[in-house]
Amino acid sequence: MEVYLDNSATTRVFLDVAELVKKLMCEDYGNPSSLHRKGVQAENYIRDAKQTFAKILKCNEKEIFFTSGGTESDNLALIGCAMANRRRGMHLITTQIEHPAILQTMKFLEEQGFRVTYLPVDGSGRIRLEDLQRAMTNETILVSIMHTNNEVGSVQPVAEAGALIKRMNPNTLFHVDAVQGFGKARIYPKKMNIDLLSASGHKIHGPKGVGLLYVSERAKIKAINYGGGQQAGLRSGTENVPGIAGMAKAAETLYDQLDQDLAHLYACKQHFIEGVSKIEGVQVNGLPMKGQQAVNAMQSGAGNCSACGGSRDGDWLLETAPHVVSVSFAGVRSEVLLHTLEDVGIYVSAGSACSAHKPQPSATLKAMGVDPSLLTSTIRFSFSVFTTMEELDYTLQILYDKIPVLRRYTRRA
Amino acid sequence: MEVYLDNSATTRVFLDVAELVKKLMCEDYGNPSSLHRKGVQAENYIRDAKQTFAKILKCNEKEIFFTSGGTESDNLALIGCAMANRRRGMHLITTQIEHPAILQTMKFLEEQGFRVTYLPVDGSGRIRLEDLQRAMTNETILVSIMHTNNEVGSVQPVAEAGALIKRMNPNTLFHVDAVQGFGKARIYPKKMNIDLLSASGHKIHGPKGVGLLYVSERAKIKAINYGGGQQAGLRSGTENVPGIAGMAKAAETLYDQLDQDLAHLYACKQHFIEGVSKIEGVQVNGLPMKGQQAVNAMQSGAGNCSACGGSRDGDWLLETAPHVVSVSFAGVRSEVLLHTLEDVGIYVSAGSACSAHKPQPSATLKAMGVDPSLLTSTIRFSFSVFTTMEELDYTLQILYDKIPVLRRYTRRA
Repeated sequence: MEVYLDNSATTRVFLDVAELVKKLMCEDYGNPSSLHRKGVQAENYIRDAKQTFAKILKCNEKEIFFTSGGTESDNLALIGCAMANRRRGMHLITTQIEHPAILQTMKFLEEQGFRVTYLPVDGSGRIRLEDLQRAMTNETILVSIMHTNNEVGSVQPVAEAGALIKRMNPNTLFHVDAVQGFGKARIYPKKMNIDLLSASGHKIHGPKGVGLLYVSERAKIKAINYGGGQQAGLRSGTENVPGIAGMAKAAETLYDQLDQDLAHLYACKQHFIEGVSKIEGVQVNGLPMKGQQAVNAMQSGAGNCSACGGSRDGDWLLETAPHVVSVSFAGVRSEVLLHTLEDVGIYVSAGSACSAHKPQPSATLKAMGVDPSLLTSTIRFSFSVFTTMEELDYTLQILYDKIPVLRRYTRRA
Repeated sequence: MEVYLDNSATTRVFLDVAELVKKLMCEDYGNPSSLHRKGVQAENYIRDAKQTFAKILKCNEKEIFFTSGGTESDNLALIGCAMANRRRGMHLITTQIEHPAILQTMKFLEEQGFRVTYLPVDGSGRIRLEDLQRAMTNETILVSIMHTNNEVGSVQPVAEAGALIKRMNPNTLFHVDAVQGFGKARIYPKKMNIDLLSASGHKIHGPKGVGLLYVSERAKIKAINYGGGQQAGLRSGTENVPGIAGMAKAAETLYDQLDQDLAHLYACKQHFIEGVSKIEGVQVNGLPMKGQQAVNAMQSGAGNCSACGGSRDGDWLLETAPHVVSVSFAGVRSEVLLHTLEDVGIYVSAGSACSAHKPQPSATLKAMGVDPSLLTSTIRFSFSVFTTMEELDYTLQILYDKIPVLRRYTRRA
């Protein structure tokens, strides 16, 4: 059995998306800048994709820009905003648990003379609005807060933060890194006072190498690359038409069936948390406080996912992402468990894939106050619409069998 | 009949490349940063791609980096080099006929305080080495010269320029924008003293949204984006594995059959130039001087392309790109001709596609000294391995029929 539970790292592309990509590579392969029919056709695919995203985000299609992925979207949002607005102030705010695409870009901006405030998070991995309120100054030109944390699945109070920011300083731009949240939550920039929003294709069963940046009409940002002036001059380079159309098709599929998918994913999450909580010395990270108290008292309820019959009876779960479960296994090294699971066809992450090649204790878990002894004993299980209850039961059975063995091994070593 | 003669704008993806891309999206879809088998598998595709390019360029695979396309490669090369070496000098050299990805990036660097010398070109669209020699100073940290011009197909004396640069200042880095030359010429960075070289996937029958930058081990450049630290920290962001593997497969195919393809393309070019030169008031731009004199005296020789039986009997042709023919039709507006051809299924460009949406007189043609009256009467025909003699004969016949009509129309208008 092959069980892919690393969907926060990347996802399997939907078959019809892949077929569309192939068609656009071999048949409708024009360059959107070409003036002839094949160019116009390519441009139409981009226009259609913009319309799809505008509908999903309830925004204007002119506010949709395409990039090479989440990292570029984040870089463009942050650097583009900082460079365009530096005369109004040199202060930026973000959180301690952002993705490296935000944290490293902030470091670069600090080198350029900007001052950055990094908001702490509570034990559930969420910022406190009072911290944000305290950090805001007249000099604050940008606040960047992720929608869903990639390591533990905590969901930030984005709408509340947006309202707070605009109340305190209407000129402050609000960026949301929604790479993990887009496709799993309804996000409406206008309603939530979001000026800039990043999303990525390959996290939502779309292609790698493509992402989007929503840029509110009222937000002023500068381009960070230079060339042919495509995309209204904000992002030069021949548009990746197959990638863009593919990402749009994947997003459309996900949002067309969002309620059903969320029911399934939350049922999976609840089922998995219940199951994994039966193992001694296990801690699930990133649940809301009431959830952490509730976790031991959970019971299976009536099925509310029509596909798998699974249930979700804890409303508190809705305050976390549907697809990420971070579990610390006391006394077990993450890498050892990762490879043990790999041996039986189960694919998971130790921390996030994005920095997996330079292992270092997770900044997110540290910021959440997770016991230092557990930092290197944590595994991220992340689900997708392809995940089944059978796969989770298989995974749980393997964990029941292997965790005691690995602990004996660790104690002996 | 559909005749796609806009291959300098973008190319049709090889079918087996598209199939590989699809497989990597739906089956081997891992994130190369993931530590489990699916991640390692994805990483292996990248390693294999690097080996392919290292073999083609005769360089070390550690010198190959992947980007989102030619524009990003050019930006990374120029800004990355300028920022890493600014303490050694603030002078840069390029040419007047570069792609906007170079020219606009140079403009940005001028805003950052760098001084840029733009080398002129002769009537054939080639720089003069003595101009380069005169421009070089002790402060020159970078020279950027394109391999093949995208509008007229002139090929620069890259090897000679490389030797000259290193003789005058071994510390000066040499960047070559080979977006149009890669796949159509043998380019060996070490032998040619090239430190940085850009190439793009979609110009060589590979996917859009992927490019490469060769960075010599001795060249010091800075990253221009920030994030997970992929690709040795030089280019953050989850690697576009399907795009990378697809681009490598396309490059391998082209270089495996390069001699045959070049014979075919040059035969096509000669045939087309001969044919189009029969029309009165026509000028082919970007031919070497001796070629311009030879063009009227051309005769068909013995076939030397085994596929099409076409011939190339003018060695002077080899000093230009095999796939680009720029033709000025006196008294005909480019856009009118473009749409006339489109109506009968022939797709061409007026100038380059990259700036087609903001029509302005071509800087390249101006720099070459093309008569101002011809600047807006120029069409680029660009061929690929899919181009056939039949397609060219069809195109020529249409031109024979339509040009006189369009001229009558223009005179009347």
